[in-house]
Amino acid sequence: MNVKHLIDLETLTTGELMEVIELANAIKADPSAYAECCRGKILATLFYEPSTRTQMSFKTAMLRLGGSVIGFDNPQNSSVSKGESLKDTITVVGGYADIIAIRHSMEGTAKAASLYSAAPVINAGDGGHLHPTQTLTDVVTLYHEKGTLDNMCIGLCGDLKNGRTVHSLIKTMSHFKGNRFVLISTPELTVPQYVKDVMNASGCRYSEAASLAEAMPMLDVLYMTRIQRERFKSLEEYEKQKGVFVLDREKMQLAKPDMKILHPLPRVDEITEEVDYDSRAKYFEQTVYGMYARMALIMKMLENADRKPLPRQFDTHPCRCSNPNCITSTEAYLPKLFRPLGGDMLLCQYCEGRSLI
Amino acid sequence: MNVKHLIDLETLTTGELMEVIELANAIKADPSAYAECCRGKILATLFYEPSTRTQMSFKTAMLRLGGSVIGFDNPQNSSVSKGESLKDTITVVGGYADIIAIRHSMEGTAKAASLYSAAPVINAGDGGHLHPTQTLTDVVTLYHEKGTLDNMCIGLCGDLKNGRTVHSLIKTMSHFKGNRFVLISTPELTVPQYVKDVMNASGCRYSEAASLAEAMPMLDVLYMTRIQRERFKSLEEYEKQKGVFVLDREKMQLAKPDMKILHPLPRVDEITEEVDYDSRAKYFEQTVYGMYARMALIMKMLENADRKPLPRQFDTHPCRCSNPNCITSTEAYLPKLFRPLGGDMLLCQYCEGRSLI
Amino acid sequence: MNVKHLIDLETLTTGELMEVIELANAIKADPSAYAECCRGKILATLFYEPSTRTQMSFKTAMLRLGGSVIGFDNPQNSSVSKGESLKDTITVVGGYADIIAIRHSMEGTAKAASLYSAAPVINAGDGGHLHPTQTLTDVVTLYHEKGTLDNMCIGLCGDLKNGRTVHSLIKTMSHFKGNRFVLISTPELTVPQYVKDVMNASGCRYSEAASLAEAMPMLDVLYMTRIQRERFKSLEEYEKQKGVFVLDREKMQLAKPDMKILHPLPRVDEITEEVDYDSRAKYFEQTVYGMYARMALIMKMLENADRKPLPRQFDTHPCRCSNPNCITSTEAYLPKLFRPLGGDMLLCQYCEGRSLI
Repeated sequence: MNVKHLIDLETLTTGELMEVIELANAIKADPSAYAECCRGKILATLFYEPSTRTQMSFKTAMLRLGGSVIGFDNPQNSSVSKGESLKDTITVVGGYADIIAIRHSMEGTAKAASLYSAAPVINAGDGGHLHPTQTLTDVVTLYHEKGTLDNMCIGLCGDLKNGRTVHSLIKTMSHFKGNRFVLISTPELTVPQYVKDVMNASGCRYSEAASLAEAMPMLDVLYMTRIQRERFKSLEEYEKQKGVFVLDREKMQLAKPDMKILHPLPRVDEITEEVDYDSRAKYFEQTVYGMYARMALIMKMLENADRKPLPRQFDTHPCRCSNPNCITSTEAYLPKLFRPLGGDMLLCQYCEGRSLI
Repeated sequence: MNVKHLIDLETLTTGELMEVIELANAIKADPSAYAECCRGKILATLFYEPSTRTQMSFKTAMLRLGGSVIGFDNPQNSSVSKGESLKDTITVVGGYADIIAIRHSMEGTAKAASLYSAAPVINAGDGGHLHPTQTLTDVVTLYHEKGTLDNMCIGLCGDLKNGRTVHSLIKTMSHFKGNRFVLISTPELTVPQYVKDVMNASGCRYSEAASLAEAMPMLDVLYMTRIQRERFKSLEEYEKQKGVFVLDREKMQLAKPDMKILHPLPRVDEITEEVDYDSRAKYFEQTVYGMYARMALIMKMLENADRKPLPRQFDTHPCRCSNPNCITSTEAYLPKLFRPLGGDMLLCQYCEGRSLI
Repeated sequence: MNVKHLIDLETLTTGELMEVIELANAIKADPSAYAECCRGKILATLFYEPSTRTQMSFKTAMLRLGGSVIGFDNPQNSSVSKGESLKDTITVVGGYADIIAIRHSMEGTAKAASLYSAAPVINAGDGGHLHPTQTLTDVVTLYHEKGTLDNMCIGLCGDLKNGRTVHSLIKTMSHFKGNRFVLISTPELTVPQYVKDVMNASGCRYSEAASLAEAMPMLDVLYMTRIQRERFKSLEEYEKQKGVFVLDREKMQLAKPDMKILHPLPRVDEITEEVDYDSRAKYFEQTVYGMYARMALIMKMLENADRKPLPRQFDTHPCRCSNPNCITSTEAYLPKLFRPLGGDMLLCQYCEGRSLI
């Protein structure tokens, strides 16, 4: 792998991504062969925002490689979070640990951390922005369950507007050939324009569907997510609509016999419990694939971890990012890093938000 | 061991129980011989209700076997507890861990978890219902300290009505021969009828005593527990009575020279601090026996752990359990499992509460 | 090392201290040679008061020696802290763990814990009293960075009145020869008289300075700490004064080229971010030295750990310590231990507070 940190899955080439996926498969086939790979290595899980599930998956991954884990999951009780800058915390933890997984409610935090960390940084979720190890989990699951990442008809159901895992999965799957997407949602909650741009640019076909039932027969994969009640225009609209986005046994009868159901979990009520016993339901196995995916990622990142001196000078820009959820809005010392988009537009290199000069 | 999960100590045969006890003794005699027994294995401690002591004992046990530990102790900060069903959490964690210890304030939770867990489940306390590893700790202590589990006069002092560890200890010790129980409490706080039924059915003698001083001279073992102030009929009654259930140096002078004092801890003021220095006080050593007991249990349960597919169909009953503290009252999808007791009575297989059809 | 517990760094002889420092250096030079030194050993970190940084340093130290860690960081959620005495908690944990690091907001807690612990106890901070592993960190850093602990001009800047790390560093460095101290503070926030007494008794020279700029040119070492706003006499005084105690790039130009800057961290705004990139800034490396210092300390303490029976009788004094922050004020069963100071004065052996008979 040519990158030191994993902030965005898009920074991996398809070849690098396939290497991680193949390694995850190899670990799954013979876990005991990897049980001592990280003996003596320490993973720090810095969870400024609690996420027991993701943290447990990272911990398990490191422990199953023979390594160990430090960290926190409880920012309120953490002296780290009292008045200390992200920079100082990361600088110190980067001296304790061999690799860091960071989660934070502000967008761009993992990128900011990577500027100051001697140890490789994995983005374990930065607000509504990115969650690359979830997408890695999804593609490891797909590859293992379908035997390929090409030529699939992939349904995505639920709140496609706000679902970062949906956007990320589309981006990643559109690097592979022949994939087609079916977007199953209300018109208000369909994917943002930039995601459509991604599909168009890569030549992937996509269509929209207003109900699960309509889309079901053509799908090779169904990626379920939840629509929160408050996303609907009104309670009446919610009551009228909710059923069409809930996966139940009846709708499963419309599906292909080898269709696979994925879900990033936790699930609330968008998949009824009876579906769990359908052999096409893969959302629980998916969490086990996620553990193998994280094992593979940690191994690959430690392989090429160097301890080269960090850059001490950044080309800071006179502008500020206009996204109020960007980490630069709370950590004022961060260098202002932008990529010009043409015209008066700048792309913030932390949160990928756009600002006018 | 013939059972996959340890929900209730009563599901072990006396022979299986003795195997665990003997293994605990063997580990205590030479801990270093067992220091690598669980290398590569992971215990998940899922503490929906905090209990630092019990959790620390489980963790230490697994670490001293060379294994490692994941889990949570802080349900408020846990995304696991936000809207996700127990079933989903257990299904996922059962995919991460090799063995699970679960504690929850609702009765029957460990049983419910066992329906969905690919990994063996240990009940680390389910509300007021059961706490089998405490009882295992108690009998390991007794066996080591007395050299036998037969023919003892066992005093139980304190709140015998609400003390689940007391009920459980009586049940377990009545499987061994020649034991006799002295119940030391107020009439209002004596053991429930079903515990008396157990003693009668097994042919164990028992008697009741209204003060520690009265019972002291005949005891081989004294199992102390606390009576909470609010359990007394009135503050006057409490003030009048409290002294007779407090163990102090004076009362120790009435005891046999080889009597042993046990206590499940934490102790508040029911044993005065001066008694700690009496060589008959075993309640601190008891916690060390508890660690060895849990080591033995984890080893035995991992030995015969299979990963057989879980049952997917349950014979659910049309009735609901009437116990408001039963886990079935909050996790609605759980199959309603009962055992008919004759007449119109049903025994809930989760909480062991009785309901009328 | 001749002491079982490390409550106060002053209980080590200079020779013992140098042994720990040399071992820390040896570990830093070749960490992998020590990666299995504590295999099978367990450290308990009992943090009654959260301090993520210190706890993480202890954990990392033990893990990098191949050992493992139990403990708590969250007293609110801890059943240990509910009604149970410190004595009982320590007695139990001393049976689980091989070594204990304890932090508590009350002064004298580590000393109190050491009375009841079968395992060696390390003081990880007891209120405003002592924090010996911070001072050990400081001297390991100095020794490695300067090559000696003698003949240095050491500046100490900030709130010298309330800073326990400052007092402790002065005490330790005055055991080495030829050191001189420059106290940089407001007159109200200079070191207490007893610290001046220490310097006088050891024959160390010291002087006072009213600003960083004035002291800067003569310093070999600058130990920065923070002055909290509320320590100043008035907001006006604060606004007028604050700049003179802030280290920035300009003041660094006055310093010797081989001066070293230390800081116990977390830093707030008393060192500007630009100084981080000055090669004389050692406060981040200092945390890594702290990890090696704790590794060395744990190794030394486990080497001579015995499990001798604890003393069961103490010569308790009829007087009570008059310090309201002393642990004896909340844990009433603790024996009252004093050292007579002459006249009517007694020195509390827990908190080192003085009481009149």
